[in-house]
Amino acid sequence: MTETLRADGRTNDELRPITIERGWSDQAEGSALISYGRTKVLCTASFTNGVPRWMSGKGKGWVTAEYSMLPRSTNSRMDRESVKGKIGGRTHEISRLVGRSLRAVVDMKALGENTLVLDCDVLQADGGTRTAAITGAYVALADALEWGRSKKFISQKAQPLLDSVSAVSVGIISGVPMLDLAYTEDVHADTDMNVVVTGRGKFVEVQGTAEAAPFDRSELDTLLDLALKGAVTLTEFQTSALTEARER
Amino acid sequence: MTETLRADGRTNDELRPITIERGWSDQAEGSALISYGRTKVLCTASFTNGVPRWMSGKGKGWVTAEYSMLPRSTNSRMDRESVKGKIGGRTHEISRLVGRSLRAVVDMKALGENTLVLDCDVLQADGGTRTAAITGAYVALADALEWGRSKKFISQKAQPLLDSVSAVSVGIISGVPMLDLAYTEDVHADTDMNVVVTGRGKFVEVQGTAEAAPFDRSELDTLLDLALKGAVTLTEFQTSALTEARER
Amino acid sequence: MTETLRADGRTNDELRPITIERGWSDQAEGSALISYGRTKVLCTASFTNGVPRWMSGKGKGWVTAEYSMLPRSTNSRMDRESVKGKIGGRTHEISRLVGRSLRAVVDMKALGENTLVLDCDVLQADGGTRTAAITGAYVALADALEWGRSKKFISQKAQPLLDSVSAVSVGIISGVPMLDLAYTEDVHADTDMNVVVTGRGKFVEVQGTAEAAPFDRSELDTLLDLALKGAVTLTEFQTSALTEARER
Amino acid sequence: MTETLRADGRTNDELRPITIERGWSDQAEGSALISYGRTKVLCTASFTNGVPRWMSGKGKGWVTAEYSMLPRSTNSRMDRESVKGKIGGRTHEISRLVGRSLRAVVDMKALGENTLVLDCDVLQADGGTRTAAITGAYVALADALEWGRSKKFISQKAQPLLDSVSAVSVGIISGVPMLDLAYTEDVHADTDMNVVVTGRGKFVEVQGTAEAAPFDRSELDTLLDLALKGAVTLTEFQTSALTEARER
Amino acid sequence: MTETLRADGRTNDELRPITIERGWSDQAEGSALISYGRTKVLCTASFTNGVPRWMSGKGKGWVTAEYSMLPRSTNSRMDRESVKGKIGGRTHEISRLVGRSLRAVVDMKALGENTLVLDCDVLQADGGTRTAAITGAYVALADALEWGRSKKFISQKAQPLLDSVSAVSVGIISGVPMLDLAYTEDVHADTDMNVVVTGRGKFVEVQGTAEAAPFDRSELDTLLDLALKGAVTLTEFQTSALTEARER
Amino acid sequence: MTETLRADGRTNDELRPITIERGWSDQAEGSALISYGRTKVLCTASFTNGVPRWMSGKGKGWVTAEYSMLPRSTNSRMDRESVKGKIGGRTHEISRLVGRSLRAVVDMKALGENTLVLDCDVLQADGGTRTAAITGAYVALADALEWGRSKKFISQKAQPLLDSVSAVSVGIISGVPMLDLAYTEDVHADTDMNVVVTGRGKFVEVQGTAEAAPFDRSELDTLLDLALKGAVTLTEFQTSALTEARER
Repeated sequence: MTETLRADGRTNDELRPITIERGWSDQAEGSALISYGRTKVLCTASFTNGVPRWMSGKGKGWVTAEYSMLPRSTNSRMDRESVKGKIGGRTHEISRLVGRSLRAVVDMKALGENTLVLDCDVLQADGGTRTAAITGAYVALADALEWGRSKKFISQKAQPLLDSVSAVSVGIISGVPMLDLAYTEDVHADTDMNVVVTGRGKFVEVQGTAEAAPFDRSELDTLLDLALKGAVTLTEFQTSALTEARER
Repeated sequence: MTETLRADGRTNDELRPITIERGWSDQAEGSALISYGRTKVLCTASFTNGVPRWMSGKGKGWVTAEYSMLPRSTNSRMDRESVKGKIGGRTHEISRLVGRSLRAVVDMKALGENTLVLDCDVLQADGGTRTAAITGAYVALADALEWGRSKKFISQKAQPLLDSVSAVSVGIISGVPMLDLAYTEDVHADTDMNVVVTGRGKFVEVQGTAEAAPFDRSELDTLLDLALKGAVTLTEFQTSALTEARER
Repeated sequence: MTETLRADGRTNDELRPITIERGWSDQAEGSALISYGRTKVLCTASFTNGVPRWMSGKGKGWVTAEYSMLPRSTNSRMDRESVKGKIGGRTHEISRLVGRSLRAVVDMKALGENTLVLDCDVLQADGGTRTAAITGAYVALADALEWGRSKKFISQKAQPLLDSVSAVSVGIISGVPMLDLAYTEDVHADTDMNVVVTGRGKFVEVQGTAEAAPFDRSELDTLLDLALKGAVTLTEFQTSALTEARER
Repeated sequence: MTETLRADGRTNDELRPITIERGWSDQAEGSALISYGRTKVLCTASFTNGVPRWMSGKGKGWVTAEYSMLPRSTNSRMDRESVKGKIGGRTHEISRLVGRSLRAVVDMKALGENTLVLDCDVLQADGGTRTAAITGAYVALADALEWGRSKKFISQKAQPLLDSVSAVSVGIISGVPMLDLAYTEDVHADTDMNVVVTGRGKFVEVQGTAEAAPFDRSELDTLLDLALKGAVTLTEFQTSALTEARER
Repeated sequence: MTETLRADGRTNDELRPITIERGWSDQAEGSALISYGRTKVLCTASFTNGVPRWMSGKGKGWVTAEYSMLPRSTNSRMDRESVKGKIGGRTHEISRLVGRSLRAVVDMKALGENTLVLDCDVLQADGGTRTAAITGAYVALADALEWGRSKKFISQKAQPLLDSVSAVSVGIISGVPMLDLAYTEDVHADTDMNVVVTGRGKFVEVQGTAEAAPFDRSELDTLLDLALKGAVTLTEFQTSALTEARER
Repeated sequence: MTETLRADGRTNDELRPITIERGWSDQAEGSALISYGRTKVLCTASFTNGVPRWMSGKGKGWVTAEYSMLPRSTNSRMDRESVKGKIGGRTHEISRLVGRSLRAVVDMKALGENTLVLDCDVLQADGGTRTAAITGAYVALADALEWGRSKKFISQKAQPLLDSVSAVSVGIISGVPMLDLAYTEDVHADTDMNVVVTGRGKFVEVQGTAEAAPFDRSELDTLLDLALKGAVTLTEFQTSALTEARER
């Protein structure tokens, strides 16, 4: 891989500085304030005993997610979706992605009839908000599951977490594949791919989009290599955050 | 590849019967009624001279798409989104996918300040509606561009179409990779992937989702092979439809 | 009546070519793709055992309808009502008209606690869409009732259909009364009337509107004569469609 | 006609007590509080110099109407449409009817580029609210046109009012045709018809609906006779209200 | 206090002419058409036996209010909130204020599991609409409570009304404190305060806003004095209305 | 004042621990993360050159605010207003309060034709969110005005800030007046008052509400004393935050 130095001095296969403040919120059953560089996402997990009526009686749980951006998380202010009265396509799409990504590592039978809602609110946006949301939401989820176990909503021997999950973006900029795109990189990418990977290195989601130029099979392969490499590091950050004593 | 016979008698690498009725609608500048087996999508292309105000003066065009399902296109009736007063996440997500897929093969400068809106309305749904929508919308788009040229909105020497584009789903069912999933196959898939490919065999979108079990690199490779194979056949159907004399 | 030849060569008391493709949709319990000339409406009937909670326990059924136009069914593209987030006045008004028209020929007690939803989606519009919707919806309804009987949701001896029902528009253009107005005729009409008539020749709805000039009693009488004449022919088309072996 | 005495002592061809308080509102350019028995509708006409942008430059005016019911105008409280966030089908339909009825007696060229909005708010409802709204709105409209003339927005010699207009309901109850149905009569009607008639006795709208039983040609004729008779009286009330010195 | 004569000839501590037409509506369990000068508000109270599900089983009642303005209650026509599809901030805020003000004088246990909805619809607006709404709604509420008692929904010995409540605006205009501001006064006020006071002279709400210039403690004191004085008179009008034989 | 020790050990006239992290967001022209105890509000100020069209050409600026709570800022998760499709009454009311409070200390002529939007997003809620929002928004506003001056959108000699502004809640709990209520205190308050005060000690807003029992004049006086005392301290925190070197 060509070692182009990026605007922020990173190499092409380097993540931005990652921080995970576990337990940032006092109110939620699990929470994490995650940053990928200047991108900051507050992830909270709300645990509710019981499931929506249409799911009840099946002995299975439910995990869902909602993603949103604060109006001034971005460089120029966006209108609030609550004020516009409708949620945009991008918001819906990312909320669905985050939910699917987390469900892929949860055993719904082991969870039992409990519901987890993950809220991922972008406080500051500089590219990669959906991937940071997934990585942070996993940490909040893990803590909320522990809370559920401590409250006996989940049985002691149940193992609802099948694996961990993290996400990262990769892209091709001026022909060069790069890991974890910042906003200014993202807007210049020919191809942009979000990859969701489990702790064991399997794919949960692969979403590649040719923004400017269709890509061939070998470019796809290089991007997947980069993403898998980034996921290993992100998994380490998650593990580290979860093994520290919880703040509060 | 294991040659399991499917419910409808297809082999694993076989598309359902494909038909494209070009020019089905008299009103639109381009149109196609496409079917992938029992899935039927009416695609219309609306050509407007001019672009939205925020794009004007840049000498570039715009292509966008809207996808929708008739309430009784499916086996049990869904509520209309117009009646509910909001568009669901899935609808938004697919509309955005169709739009991006078509934009990937259009040269916006060659298009000039013209707008194309592709409407993809699912009249009957049996799996693969988004992929049929993309394949059919390309045919409608091609005709609408010809119309624009005939009306002199596009200059004679401009070549707005860079390539053709088609789409197909692939998935892993009980461990077996299969091409072009029908609805009953789709609901049993462990992994489901929608692949958008150009006529020249490059990827525009790769959207793979682990519905039940995360997938590894070799499974991903097999699915991509199947999708590329299907795309070759779909491109032939498009070419054939577009070289026939237009119906009306 | 003056025998003015119309733009499409019809006489003033002549319907456009009528076709009814019964069973067009595989998914619905009853369906018909009806055309009045270039106007094409896909009508589906969804049969559900049971009624909304507020009606339950009265031993009576419910029939309702929703009418909608595809955005590019018309000559220039309309915005989708699902995208606008509200249903326009015209759509509401026609949905209500279609529902009332069908309820007028259904014996709700004989139907029993079953619900029928008629969806009338205009695929192509060239005037008279609401009247085509009613005529086609009747065919879909009749098939869905048969389906309900075959599934034993309706008892063998019950006769929920009291009569058939069809509809046609009439109007006065440049002083001349005409039957079944195409779009270009409709926009020039001084008076426009939609008449819904049963197979036995009784009125279900008479909706006359002076678009340009109020009309007198004798004009009203002439229009009603024309409508009754058209209804006789439409009833024959319905009977013929319903007596053919169903396609699938 | 059989002389059945009605619940309120009226004969079958008798209107309820009609009152028109012209100029009830100080704020509007024209206003009337009309009552048909216990039904009370406040009609205001808002005159604006200029027309919506899409109509401008054609030298023609615009007249539109909005109908609404206060939540407790009826016997049991209804939810507010503003709270529900959407306008129901019935409200839309009646607003459109009132607007069309008034436009039928206005010469848009003589009106010039001016806009009139008629608001008809039902303060108390006891059947016939849409017909009272039309009859009252005409009075408010006439005053607002005079106001526009006095302000020179309408030229002295222009005659925007082509005729007057009023409306009344008729129906068949237990086989007996009756004029001006009160709410309890309306719910028992087999057939219900709203008829909008000009001062010169021509029809603007005829909207007959078979609520319970389709009706034949002779029943239709009897109902139209009754409506024309009622309209003569209503026109007298309008004339009388408009010739009295305006209150304020 | 300086005795500036106001535009309508009032002294600074004088209310506008107050009228309360109790029982104006035949349909509601309690109603009052109140006027503060040209401001006219129709207040209706709807009594329902039972409470919303989330409150049920606690032996307590519920009182809520909705405030709205007719589109042409004001000098220039406003868009209807039902047409806009959302309720504005001011409407919400006033609805909440009216509800809170009435709840402050109702003993929810004595009310028992009954619900009262107060609708305050402004028919004509000339300043002080929210204060007139509260004063009028109290009269409607009192009558609806009597109705509930007469129907045995409220027990004979229960005393749900703890006190009466009325409201008035006060403000500082060009440095001069004034009572009961008309619209033209309100727009010129430096400070505007709405004060809700019980019959026994205690405060329920004090909402003072510096529109143009922050106010000091002594100005606040003077305004509160004025408001308490006005409340005494308003209470007399309420008492007088409620002791007259009810109209219908 | 009785020196009851509160749940968190404060005296009755003591604020919770106050922190103001100025410049928390990199993206906005001004920002502050403020906390009143466990209540945390992120306030951003967005500066735009120019004003909405309806204000343009008057040489005056505009300041507005939007308040919102993250769904899991509270002890149990609330539905998102963007998902519900409408903004609740409380949200509207607080947004309007924050906007008015800030406008009271801005000289719109000195601001010139520039717009400031203050977003106050509650990240964690424990009572007093609206008052923390106002106090924090002032800091963000001050920085955004400096930014506007540095960019020459505001002239060097203009003084758009007339004063500072802060807010605090006061209430009576079990008969005892207290300053800065935490959530558990707020729900038990008989009377709750939010007071907005300028740096010079004048009132901008006084909003007192009798939640349980109407209050008399002397109670009101005591509450105002407490609020003025708290405001002095809050002003010191604001001054201190603004005199520190800005973080970024």
